[in-house]
Amino acid sequence: MTAAAAVEVAVSTVIFALRRSPADDRMTVWLPLVRRIREPFDGRWALPGGPLGPNEDLAESAARTLAETTLLTPQYLEQLYAFGNTDRSPGERVVSIVYWALVRSDEADVAVETENVRWFEADSVPELAFDHNVIVDYALWRLRNKLEYSHIASAFLGDTFTLSELREVHEAVLQKPLDPANFRRQVESSGQVVPTEQLRTGGRHRPARLYRYNTAAPDTTSGPLGARPLPGRTQG
Amino acid sequence: MTAAAAVEVAVSTVIFALRRSPADDRMTVWLPLVRRIREPFDGRWALPGGPLGPNEDLAESAARTLAETTLLTPQYLEQLYAFGNTDRSPGERVVSIVYWALVRSDEADVAVETENVRWFEADSVPELAFDHNVIVDYALWRLRNKLEYSHIASAFLGDTFTLSELREVHEAVLQKPLDPANFRRQVESSGQVVPTEQLRTGGRHRPARLYRYNTAAPDTTSGPLGARPLPGRTQG
Repeated sequence: MTAAAAVEVAVSTVIFALRRSPADDRMTVWLPLVRRIREPFDGRWALPGGPLGPNEDLAESAARTLAETTLLTPQYLEQLYAFGNTDRSPGERVVSIVYWALVRSDEADVAVETENVRWFEADSVPELAFDHNVIVDYALWRLRNKLEYSHIASAFLGDTFTLSELREVHEAVLQKPLDPANFRRQVESSGQVVPTEQLRTGGRHRPARLYRYNTAAPDTTSGPLGARPLPGRTQG
Repeated sequence: MTAAAAVEVAVSTVIFALRRSPADDRMTVWLPLVRRIREPFDGRWALPGGPLGPNEDLAESAARTLAETTLLTPQYLEQLYAFGNTDRSPGERVVSIVYWALVRSDEADVAVETENVRWFEADSVPELAFDHNVIVDYALWRLRNKLEYSHIASAFLGDTFTLSELREVHEAVLQKPLDPANFRRQVESSGQVVPTEQLRTGGRHRPARLYRYNTAAPDTTSGPLGARPLPGRTQG
């Protein structure tokens, strides 16, 4: 297997969180990037990641490099795609298995920004190392597509949420305003969410009903391998 | 990157075609397997595949090993998943990037069966090498899931098909009989297929209208990277 020995395997992760844009205070999709401090692409921003360790599974490698670079331990971590074009890294052959993760805003807040770790708005990242712009665009496409037919929004929200909070997630991901009454009608008629007995109280607004995703209408789209709890964690 | 050098990269493919079951003449899902002729798992059946060549992209590697072992050149070839658990291959660390392909029955017929290449019904494959049973089950799950929300059936049928042919594909993949009148109503009301001006004539049956998938209702589920034409081929 001499041919195969020349190929290196790396694992990288796209981690999305929702944050307010400093420009207009709207919620938008953000992701943390890491500045490269060696060639190739010295100085460019890149996805967090690194070489696959000989004794770790793919998802473990994604979780480890994430924690090392960003201090994040997301509950939702799913394999996105394997990128392996011959020309994606000058002078070496690297196949990158890319995971993607969604974190709640309060989880994202533990991620410390440093000179070499910074959060960017996903729709306006700079020119990245390797083919990482292609990867970010693909992850964004997957996020927007999957929002329509899965329970993925709860990864941003936790188990219970108001319909206003759910709408804000949809608006942030799809980058367009949604009519509150229409949104409420569509969500309620879909059967995908069900009301709980709890209310969200406090804050500036009047108490609002909390909802949760309907586990009787299971989210089958992740499939048997799609999203798995990480070792020692429970699935979000 | 010494840690990464110990990891080998292989590319394997699950190729599905519809064939009649010898037991009861019903159409079922079949796939070709290759008998291993060396350790590990000497003598066991496995998915067609092999080590990633240093100068080939992932999809090219899948197409090459497919052609070498089965003579098949499928028009639909999509990345399925990367399998990389540490315990999946005794004595070596192999990450397998798995593709999946669908071929029409007439394409599948060119695949010659030999002592070491044989077609199996996907629901009753023997105990395979490595974690290939898990991979086949996952690919079957993906096929059944994707049939519901994409134009994937046309990969079995070609560009035009009668509604009876389309129903037969759904029955074969889902492994259950479907009421012809209900199926016709559901398909026509979905807007996913549109009638053409052509009829299927000849054979035992009266002429039947040919349909095609509605390209104005695009199949977005494959995404920007999901299914790509292979070099030198047109997309089916």
